[in-house]
Amino acid sequence: MTGARANIAQGDLQDQKITGYQSPLGVTRTQTATLRGVQMQSGFTFDQVEVAYQTLGTLSARRDNAILVCHALSGTAHVAGLHPETGRPGWWDYHVGPGKAVDTDKFFVICSNVLGGCDGTTGPMSVRPETGQPYGMDFPAVTVSDMVTVQAKLVEHLGLSQLFAVIGGSMGGMQALAWAVNLPDLVRVCIPIATCASHNAMQIAFNEIGRRAIITDPNWNSGNYTPECRPKHGLAVARMVGHVTYLSEYAMTRKFGRTLQPRIAPADAEEALFTVENYLHHQGESFVNRFDPNSYLYLTKALDQFDLFGGQPPQEVLRRVSARFLVISFASDWLYPPAQSRELVRLLKRARVAATYINLETLYGHDSFLIQNPEFANVVRHYLENEYRNGNFPEAGAAI
Amino acid sequence: MTGARANIAQGDLQDQKITGYQSPLGVTRTQTATLRGVQMQSGFTFDQVEVAYQTLGTLSARRDNAILVCHALSGTAHVAGLHPETGRPGWWDYHVGPGKAVDTDKFFVICSNVLGGCDGTTGPMSVRPETGQPYGMDFPAVTVSDMVTVQAKLVEHLGLSQLFAVIGGSMGGMQALAWAVNLPDLVRVCIPIATCASHNAMQIAFNEIGRRAIITDPNWNSGNYTPECRPKHGLAVARMVGHVTYLSEYAMTRKFGRTLQPRIAPADAEEALFTVENYLHHQGESFVNRFDPNSYLYLTKALDQFDLFGGQPPQEVLRRVSARFLVISFASDWLYPPAQSRELVRLLKRARVAATYINLETLYGHDSFLIQNPEFANVVRHYLENEYRNGNFPEAGAAI
Repeated sequence: MTGARANIAQGDLQDQKITGYQSPLGVTRTQTATLRGVQMQSGFTFDQVEVAYQTLGTLSARRDNAILVCHALSGTAHVAGLHPETGRPGWWDYHVGPGKAVDTDKFFVICSNVLGGCDGTTGPMSVRPETGQPYGMDFPAVTVSDMVTVQAKLVEHLGLSQLFAVIGGSMGGMQALAWAVNLPDLVRVCIPIATCASHNAMQIAFNEIGRRAIITDPNWNSGNYTPECRPKHGLAVARMVGHVTYLSEYAMTRKFGRTLQPRIAPADAEEALFTVENYLHHQGESFVNRFDPNSYLYLTKALDQFDLFGGQPPQEVLRRVSARFLVISFASDWLYPPAQSRELVRLLKRARVAATYINLETLYGHDSFLIQNPEFANVVRHYLENEYRNGNFPEAGAAI
Repeated sequence: MTGARANIAQGDLQDQKITGYQSPLGVTRTQTATLRGVQMQSGFTFDQVEVAYQTLGTLSARRDNAILVCHALSGTAHVAGLHPETGRPGWWDYHVGPGKAVDTDKFFVICSNVLGGCDGTTGPMSVRPETGQPYGMDFPAVTVSDMVTVQAKLVEHLGLSQLFAVIGGSMGGMQALAWAVNLPDLVRVCIPIATCASHNAMQIAFNEIGRRAIITDPNWNSGNYTPECRPKHGLAVARMVGHVTYLSEYAMTRKFGRTLQPRIAPADAEEALFTVENYLHHQGESFVNRFDPNSYLYLTKALDQFDLFGGQPPQEVLRRVSARFLVISFASDWLYPPAQSRELVRLLKRARVAATYINLETLYGHDSFLIQNPEFANVVRHYLENEYRNGNFPEAGAAI
């Protein structure tokens, strides 16, 4: 717990450059692949999709040790190691690296920016070939399954016929679930973390508040904003809402309580009175510098529309799954409450899918999957090692 | 529970005109009192304060049956009965009336719009005598204690030397607590509901998101907006945030689940895909028509700054309390969680203040105090009746 306590003070690795933080991986680089002819669930086909991705570790001779790490809403391909330009650690550097939860000494790790994102993969900010202008809101609708389609093409592009495992938290967990259901022969182990099979009304509501803040910002301009005049206030409010839902009351009380922001003059209405307010302003502002408002709209819509069973009986959908599952939730996560993970596990077990479930007693809310946590790391590392050692899945390539 | 179930579908009485709803009180009217020389905690003195208020029931010959009902953030003086113009029931019509929780057959009920509000009491929308223009952000800072100061002046204006009881939920509960601490000789029974002695970091954070949405709306214009050009988008987002925090996951799942908004054409980004989104838009828009954005800033600041003990040892502060307490919380209220009420009760009991505590197992979140609920009504009605019957308080007037 000491580690977790230390790190809540540091915060999300993605948001802050952590003073003195040393990644054992050193500098890591993101590459780009160009995939051709990628069809969306909607029927729309991209002639070409660019995908930003990172690989870490070494592919085994049998090509059977690849793990796809899927990122959450605000994540990027830069999963671990230090960014060559900013020097920032990747968003999951605590858990991806030598001897870590996802052990780069043993596994070949792939992480790619999702379709519809804004950090190197084709998304609303990308230039539309027909017009030479950014897609903006003319970008086709994106679903979690579409993200998985693009990832599968990338995996193929990397010369792999299957993955050993797919792992991810939050939106990343939905991608992991969609992999297991949509491409059952291509994935042996599925580790969905702090996620659900579909959003409930409250999860949709929080996303909609963020979207509303963006689209009612006059600078949004129906999605046709310029880089100089982006709906940054709306996006900042959206991020503030998101950020609060990612934290627990305990974490916020421990970190801020009712501590007052130091000041000389009396506070204006715009200024923070309490440190927690100042922290939220900072979170909003730093997010605006690294995220595209239209991407935020597309990705949150994909989250809200995700439905693993798509109206079909869960047993029918899960019957085709061949992956083995490790489902992880966090007791203090009130945005993706453990009850949603338990229900998923119940359905998996009823469909006779091998599923291990652990609800970790962390105190830090939804963000628990991002922070340092030896218990989490041990659970994931041991599960992956055992499954890899005792693999009961067809030989690589045999299933395809 | 059937009643509560029926009414979550109808929603907050304040927000919607409920088809066919009959108030036993018929049409009720709001009056205005002018109070002179009202000094704020900050030292600022109003030459004159207008207060909108409603009274229901009959004052006893002994003038010992007055109950002050304090409203929450978005409430008004119109507590019960039907509004003469809109026909809408008052915000607590379910619980104030003949035979109800606050029984108007037995008690003389007073409810006034708070200082800093926007429904008849002096607030940021009021015209500043010196300039002939609305105060806007030049309105002096308002605290919960200032609200109580104005209420006490109103009570005096009505010819009363004391109150039998003060009752309120949420921000209204804070006023009830401040009454018991600030004016210990003037109140015999204190019923704080779904409230706390001071906001935690998460409660401050949610308020700050709402404020940020308002002040980053370009129409806010440092608070100097015109009636034609108000920061309505920002206020709507603020209300949407508030509204979600007032509901429980259960209530939202039951009412909306993942039901899709009916439509003919595919949804634009601005449109609701799920019914819950449409509901939130409606909540935001209807609030904009009845609430002043600057008031929202002032009142939420008052909420965040409220601290019953003000840095003093709770035992010292509570030693001067003479009221008897009924503290009520709701199991599903995650915005003002029962733990805060339990802590308050612990401190009251430690200070040897008579305190009864009940945590009601409702499923509807913070809004539970606003909806129909026979168990809640019975608890409050019986407590008030027993205390009135067995009153161990000095005779009216004797304490002053």
